[in-house]
Amino acid sequence: MGLDMIRAGIVGGTGYTGVELLRILALHGQVEISVVTSRSDDGKRVDALYPSLRGSIDLCFTKPDVESLASCDVVFFATPNGTAMLMAEQLLARNVKVIDLSADFRINDAAEWSKWYGMEHACPDLITDAVYGLPEINRKQIKGANLIACPGCYPTAVQLGFLPLIEHGLVDVEHLIADVKSGVSGAGRKAAVPSLMSESGESFKAYASAGHRHLPEISQGLSLVAQKQVGLTFVPHLVPMIRGIQATLYAQLQGDTAEQLQALYEQRYAHEPFVDVLPVGEHPDTRNVRGSNNCQIAIVVPQGGETVVVLSVIDNLVKGAAGQAVQNMNLMFGFNEGHGLQTIALYP
Amino acid sequence: MGLDMIRAGIVGGTGYTGVELLRILALHGQVEISVVTSRSDDGKRVDALYPSLRGSIDLCFTKPDVESLASCDVVFFATPNGTAMLMAEQLLARNVKVIDLSADFRINDAAEWSKWYGMEHACPDLITDAVYGLPEINRKQIKGANLIACPGCYPTAVQLGFLPLIEHGLVDVEHLIADVKSGVSGAGRKAAVPSLMSESGESFKAYASAGHRHLPEISQGLSLVAQKQVGLTFVPHLVPMIRGIQATLYAQLQGDTAEQLQALYEQRYAHEPFVDVLPVGEHPDTRNVRGSNNCQIAIVVPQGGETVVVLSVIDNLVKGAAGQAVQNMNLMFGFNEGHGLQTIALYP
Amino acid sequence: MGLDMIRAGIVGGTGYTGVELLRILALHGQVEISVVTSRSDDGKRVDALYPSLRGSIDLCFTKPDVESLASCDVVFFATPNGTAMLMAEQLLARNVKVIDLSADFRINDAAEWSKWYGMEHACPDLITDAVYGLPEINRKQIKGANLIACPGCYPTAVQLGFLPLIEHGLVDVEHLIADVKSGVSGAGRKAAVPSLMSESGESFKAYASAGHRHLPEISQGLSLVAQKQVGLTFVPHLVPMIRGIQATLYAQLQGDTAEQLQALYEQRYAHEPFVDVLPVGEHPDTRNVRGSNNCQIAIVVPQGGETVVVLSVIDNLVKGAAGQAVQNMNLMFGFNEGHGLQTIALYP
Amino acid sequence: MGLDMIRAGIVGGTGYTGVELLRILALHGQVEISVVTSRSDDGKRVDALYPSLRGSIDLCFTKPDVESLASCDVVFFATPNGTAMLMAEQLLARNVKVIDLSADFRINDAAEWSKWYGMEHACPDLITDAVYGLPEINRKQIKGANLIACPGCYPTAVQLGFLPLIEHGLVDVEHLIADVKSGVSGAGRKAAVPSLMSESGESFKAYASAGHRHLPEISQGLSLVAQKQVGLTFVPHLVPMIRGIQATLYAQLQGDTAEQLQALYEQRYAHEPFVDVLPVGEHPDTRNVRGSNNCQIAIVVPQGGETVVVLSVIDNLVKGAAGQAVQNMNLMFGFNEGHGLQTIALYP
Repeated sequence: MGLDMIRAGIVGGTGYTGVELLRILALHGQVEISVVTSRSDDGKRVDALYPSLRGSIDLCFTKPDVESLASCDVVFFATPNGTAMLMAEQLLARNVKVIDLSADFRINDAAEWSKWYGMEHACPDLITDAVYGLPEINRKQIKGANLIACPGCYPTAVQLGFLPLIEHGLVDVEHLIADVKSGVSGAGRKAAVPSLMSESGESFKAYASAGHRHLPEISQGLSLVAQKQVGLTFVPHLVPMIRGIQATLYAQLQGDTAEQLQALYEQRYAHEPFVDVLPVGEHPDTRNVRGSNNCQIAIVVPQGGETVVVLSVIDNLVKGAAGQAVQNMNLMFGFNEGHGLQTIALYP
Repeated sequence: MGLDMIRAGIVGGTGYTGVELLRILALHGQVEISVVTSRSDDGKRVDALYPSLRGSIDLCFTKPDVESLASCDVVFFATPNGTAMLMAEQLLARNVKVIDLSADFRINDAAEWSKWYGMEHACPDLITDAVYGLPEINRKQIKGANLIACPGCYPTAVQLGFLPLIEHGLVDVEHLIADVKSGVSGAGRKAAVPSLMSESGESFKAYASAGHRHLPEISQGLSLVAQKQVGLTFVPHLVPMIRGIQATLYAQLQGDTAEQLQALYEQRYAHEPFVDVLPVGEHPDTRNVRGSNNCQIAIVVPQGGETVVVLSVIDNLVKGAAGQAVQNMNLMFGFNEGHGLQTIALYP
Repeated sequence: MGLDMIRAGIVGGTGYTGVELLRILALHGQVEISVVTSRSDDGKRVDALYPSLRGSIDLCFTKPDVESLASCDVVFFATPNGTAMLMAEQLLARNVKVIDLSADFRINDAAEWSKWYGMEHACPDLITDAVYGLPEINRKQIKGANLIACPGCYPTAVQLGFLPLIEHGLVDVEHLIADVKSGVSGAGRKAAVPSLMSESGESFKAYASAGHRHLPEISQGLSLVAQKQVGLTFVPHLVPMIRGIQATLYAQLQGDTAEQLQALYEQRYAHEPFVDVLPVGEHPDTRNVRGSNNCQIAIVVPQGGETVVVLSVIDNLVKGAAGQAVQNMNLMFGFNEGHGLQTIALYP
Repeated sequence: MGLDMIRAGIVGGTGYTGVELLRILALHGQVEISVVTSRSDDGKRVDALYPSLRGSIDLCFTKPDVESLASCDVVFFATPNGTAMLMAEQLLARNVKVIDLSADFRINDAAEWSKWYGMEHACPDLITDAVYGLPEINRKQIKGANLIACPGCYPTAVQLGFLPLIEHGLVDVEHLIADVKSGVSGAGRKAAVPSLMSESGESFKAYASAGHRHLPEISQGLSLVAQKQVGLTFVPHLVPMIRGIQATLYAQLQGDTAEQLQALYEQRYAHEPFVDVLPVGEHPDTRNVRGSNNCQIAIVVPQGGETVVVLSVIDNLVKGAAGQAVQNMNLMFGFNEGHGLQTIALYP
């Protein structure tokens, strides 16, 4: 282990965000993966479950256990909702930094969280300590944080798309619309009939249109930026592909700013390593960010009207989960922000 | 040939709407397919090009020719835009009914048509004779028509979704949004890099967001219903699947009518053979109409807000093209409207 | 109910072969579906589970019950293995014909069956009464049968492909190879991680190469034809598509018959309504039989060598399951063999 | 440019193997990409055609030109067949090493080459100078080579799978069978109807069963190993996925060696960085090598019989093309053989 290396643990290493963390961290160069936990696959070799990792990860899954995790410098929770909140406090007390990829610390209001996630919050006091891990908004706070609430996949794509418009007060924030489409890996590695290829392949549908758990997270984030409560209609859809999220965002322009939007977006993201504003006339395509930590964005005002359309794509498992988690880790430990993330999308 | 049978010709039988017409008409029972034309495949057996038709269609492609087509009772144009307008007049003069699946007669204003389709209209005088073949609006006129302009695929899904809201004046028609997603067969059977599976598979993107040819067609249709010019933002997207369109429609409700919308839609479409309003809480899925002439619709007002969301799905090649054309034919010739179209979607 | 109509029951109506039976029988015209059972969905409307059937099937699932099934003329078992053998005897005693789509009665040797299916056979005496429902071999026996063991999907594709070669003793039957590829619907509508789209999409693999349950069924069928025990290597593969099976069959030719093979196949299947020998040089494509009951076959002897290659495609849910079951039913009840099955594959 | 860096040119940078070379070389660290040529896109920015490369490749396409290519240390030809043979001689004369990913130098017999590729060979004298770039066979010769003929994608998967069996004389080489399946990217980035997603999606078929261009290449390679002419039946198939090749290989065992095969394969590939023999009972899955340079292999003797089945998977664009080309380059220039290739497959 090199002098500058840190030790990382992954709780819940058998889901898609877990294996994606493994893929990224195995090649990171400044991280030694020392613990990967799984209740269901305890004792099994990681690469027996994931043959794609043969030759790269020489570890067995272990049961989640605070003692062994406490030897890490950082622990990632790639667990279902409700797990991180049970272990975070103990780890933080042992000076372990915690990066939670689940939703446990994303919503500031514990009662609101309980309403959407259907359980009591186990450590509501910690919520205010958590920093929402969207570097494009909270880079400075992330650097000093011990507990990171990694944004959801939809919230990442939607917030990065809306951000410049709302920061500059250019749109009616009471009637925002986010029509968002996700690949099926967003549903996780969980045996369920609707996620079968026979069910979700060759078909397209909206779901949870009456209210999806990412709605309060996005509303909270955009409201903080707007400094007032936003009104958001958020409709998620399921795309017959594995990876990728595309958000099509609609807002009503206030004032005659259509011509300046391209420049505004380019300036806003000029120094962001992972947000890329496409040239005028281009449409972002999820394949161009597949496997990478990039968000690609385009802005259009169709027919010179009052409605601005923003198109935003990410890989839901990278910038929408594991990649963003590593980006946060890099910031927290003073590494180059893009370290281990400078891969190129797998095209075709 | 039975007493009640008619003779049909298909111009442009090698594209996807052409082969879909062949599939439907071959089993229709009251139609004899007597001519199928193709410039490129003249002389070739139809089932040599389309082995799925072996045993069902015993014909060879011929060059398009008014004389042979004039022996038909009805001629379908499943051609690229700009072909039907060159032949329709002669066929109508020979008492042949014409059903055009292309865009030649969809736009009432020939100048507007030229702007979007990039060519002069060859017979602008005929445009006013054409009936827009959306039976759910124009059933009566279709029965008496000699020339049908079959609606585009996107316009069918969008108009059927918006219709009840606009007929009853329930929404702000100046800010309608149609976020629409189509399978790749909508691009036709044309060699083109963007339609390769390596390009369009496992990826999702918007396209033509600045202005798509179906925008004026939809605007025209909705404006006629609204009895005023509507404002529409229309963003089409490409889904990595072959068949199916899903439209997600957004509008701002005027007045407190959210609770009545389900009943309103059910009443509006109660007697429509091919429009099906789903129970509250269901989301339509394109697979459930794949290969069928059905449109399935759901209505939701998320979080009890002011924005109504309508979800509408069709098979772009059936209700969005060949099936609707046959539905029009059935009406024109006094057959049962659903004759030959009572198939069930192919699930899974 | 028409004079010539029969009443049918479906046990296990919630799986893919069950819903495919519903799709076919709903349009059959001579069958009234009177009972559809499901333990898990008892009381639920069929079209609530399968919205593709809205307007076509007006029934609720009921618990499987001999009394209600005994009112049927025919009962289809679209159940997991091990269910039909528990109920068949009682139904047969009540003069109900039974068509079993599962494997319970496919293997003549009960001990062999137990070895492969991991349970004792509940009614071994019935096995000899069962007719193996491959009409291309057993048409005459099917007509007089009361109990049909419908062939498996792989066995249908493989046997139809090998049949003419083996009937005429043209190949070395001790070294037959069947390299077979199936869409994922073959795994059924069962929540399981390997069948998730994220697992089976965009990927290809062999499975069960050491021994698949369809191996003894195929060997038994081919051995009966060969009048000696055949030697078969059978390797199934999973294709990232929903429907379709393609079998690539290899055998060593005995004698100089390569040139006569095309004619031989054409003659063998000349009067078969659902087996179609393609012209020389064509390759069958699963899409051309999707949703249809057809089997399309091609024969090639590469480079004029000693190895003959037969390519055979079916839709695993139609000719490989529900369609073949209906073909058997038609034969058993004296209907036209192709009644209700004359659909055309859904292309594209 | 670092001291140890080399300058590389890519001729034909717009196809899938070209863009894959760009993806790999951009992150290689010891290579500066100095020229990327394209006749059709001359002058266009590379990342305008391939937005996945934005931020990674800051170059424009140029016309292919010996002068500018001569400034490189190595030139890759990612061109259609017939191009490299026109330029290789001039480049070699200028001391530029040439790595040809096309088929121009793969077949030792120029007449045989002409027969399969339909053109005269432009520089038959060079063929004998070319080293066939399969490191697992020719590592030593590759290190000293100036001209590399990179193996085809099918030949790589098939040869690596058969190699240990044939090297040890364990099988009847007169009746080898290779049933091979490829994703659609193997057809390249070329506008063609059969490669449309509407044609190749959701379908499976064999093609070119009477004789595919990779047949003589595989036969030549295996015959060299066997030291006698092998007899091979090679049937390629098209899988509805983008990347990946899976080969299922069949051979008749000579002698009682079934039990030793696993150990034999493990020993043969123990020191190969990119060939990985899976544990007994595992089946390789193309997803586990997607985007990586790995070949994963399994061996099984079904039912303890005489037929051995070898399963071999690669990513056709990496180990089957661009990755293998870089592996060759690493060997030629004395870099670590795996440099730039130690990525992990993108799963899911």
